[in-house]
Amino acid sequence: MKSSDFLLLCRSVRFGDTDAAGVMHFHQLLRWCHEAYEESTEIFGIGANELFPRPGLELEILLPIVHCSADYLAPLSCGDPLAIQLAPRLLDSSSFEVSYSFSSRGEAVANACIRSVCINAIDRKRAPLPAPISRWIAASAVTD
Amino acid sequence: MKSSDFLLLCRSVRFGDTDAAGVMHFHQLLRWCHEAYEESTEIFGIGANELFPRPGLELEILLPIVHCSADYLAPLSCGDPLAIQLAPRLLDSSSFEVSYSFSSRGEAVANACIRSVCINAIDRKRAPLPAPISRWIAASAVTD
Amino acid sequence: MKSSDFLLLCRSVRFGDTDAAGVMHFHQLLRWCHEAYEESTEIFGIGANELFPRPGLELEILLPIVHCSADYLAPLSCGDPLAIQLAPRLLDSSSFEVSYSFSSRGEAVANACIRSVCINAIDRKRAPLPAPISRWIAASAVTD
Amino acid sequence: MKSSDFLLLCRSVRFGDTDAAGVMHFHQLLRWCHEAYEESTEIFGIGANELFPRPGLELEILLPIVHCSADYLAPLSCGDPLAIQLAPRLLDSSSFEVSYSFSSRGEAVANACIRSVCINAIDRKRAPLPAPISRWIAASAVTD
Repeated sequence: MKSSDFLLLCRSVRFGDTDAAGVMHFHQLLRWCHEAYEESTEIFGIGANELFPRPGLELEILLPIVHCSADYLAPLSCGDPLAIQLAPRLLDSSSFEVSYSFSSRGEAVANACIRSVCINAIDRKRAPLPAPISRWIAASAVTD
Repeated sequence: MKSSDFLLLCRSVRFGDTDAAGVMHFHQLLRWCHEAYEESTEIFGIGANELFPRPGLELEILLPIVHCSADYLAPLSCGDPLAIQLAPRLLDSSSFEVSYSFSSRGEAVANACIRSVCINAIDRKRAPLPAPISRWIAASAVTD
Repeated sequence: MKSSDFLLLCRSVRFGDTDAAGVMHFHQLLRWCHEAYEESTEIFGIGANELFPRPGLELEILLPIVHCSADYLAPLSCGDPLAIQLAPRLLDSSSFEVSYSFSSRGEAVANACIRSVCINAIDRKRAPLPAPISRWIAASAVTD
Repeated sequence: MKSSDFLLLCRSVRFGDTDAAGVMHFHQLLRWCHEAYEESTEIFGIGANELFPRPGLELEILLPIVHCSADYLAPLSCGDPLAIQLAPRLLDSSSFEVSYSFSSRGEAVANACIRSVCINAIDRKRAPLPAPISRWIAASAVTD
């Protein structure tokens, strides 16, 4: 699988993402980032049940978000197409961050970054990243 | 406690609740309903941990929503004040619904209804409503 | 274009759509409905700017939602795949509703319905549906 | 009016703010920040129609968000009470940022920051901050 297959994603701005100024309401961008992360790992072959808790499935490790940021470069309106480029990066053995570059019709429109730390679900102490996430980050570093 | 103390609540339309048509985006109303239900039971004296799961706290019973509906009577803009009147009603020993009437500056603007069923968390079979919810519904029927 | 090309859509339950009970939080379903309506009309060939306002583009007619409802048949967890079947229906010359049937892995999981009325943007009086929406509804009635 | 009257606000974590990990889903924090900003300016006496567009009311200036960030220090569960301390700060004549410190039961749980730039609604060029916002920022600097 080429890294562009799971690191370059598309979506459209939806009406409910906008506010009365007529453009995307700022915190929706961070929702798009997380949904892109879920879609990317899904395409890469990681099951949602390997990363996210569900009823009856206790995970031994959790990946809480500890930091996020976003920069807004241009207004986005309902129907605007978005290309989202993900760039995951290992920070240390128990944490990573994903950078997100949003463009629309070839123009850069926003950037964002989300940092996660791996912790043990019981004692909430730092733990090594789960193997699937390490593989996804490693594969991301390989240019096509 | 008078029933109006926990059944008549207030909030304002916020900017992120609106869309590019300049008015409240429709599904936000149902979020407001659920938040009003949480605030009402909180004021009545029911702890969130008696009704809602949290990490490390498994509940024996769950109250999933099985139906909701909403009617929109007037557009709502950012900053509009809202009065929310709740009317809980027992349907049978294991289910109840709450009707919500929204008004702004004395004018009716929306109505909604949410129906919940009590189930056992393990086998997901119907179970009697938890005592705190039964008390909240009974107290709601007493007019001030 | 076959009607199934624009009336049968797919998405996945995302982590941010769930709540602490581990399953989809109820009002997200209505967001999915509206996004499916936007995606369907987009595939059918209607531009977002024909239906939704954006800065600098005043629409002569608006299509506010006047009613919605939803029935929840089964819990949905993060990563669950969804098939969404849309069924638009003309109510009269100025209003229509869209029924949404959600299934996951072949099992019916939820139904919903959203009703819209066409109004003039200036005087907010009822107006005939815009031609693109009438065509979309008419094409929906043609079985493949 | 003391600055603490409009800079120290309260809310509770609601069920719809949580995800299947049982805790607040990260981007909801940024929604809380913006709602706190709206509530703070409202208490200070600024009408929503002075800051936010609504149908039939075109604003001459807009205040788009150009940057946001958040740090998450502790997990938050449904029902947890939140105290939100706002600290607005002028950046230059046409931009400002607001820092938000969240605590729950006396413990710091999150910090966030949102930066806005004032632009002319027509040509989208930088413009001086509107007088009400300048007054709100100036009043915020006065310790009680």
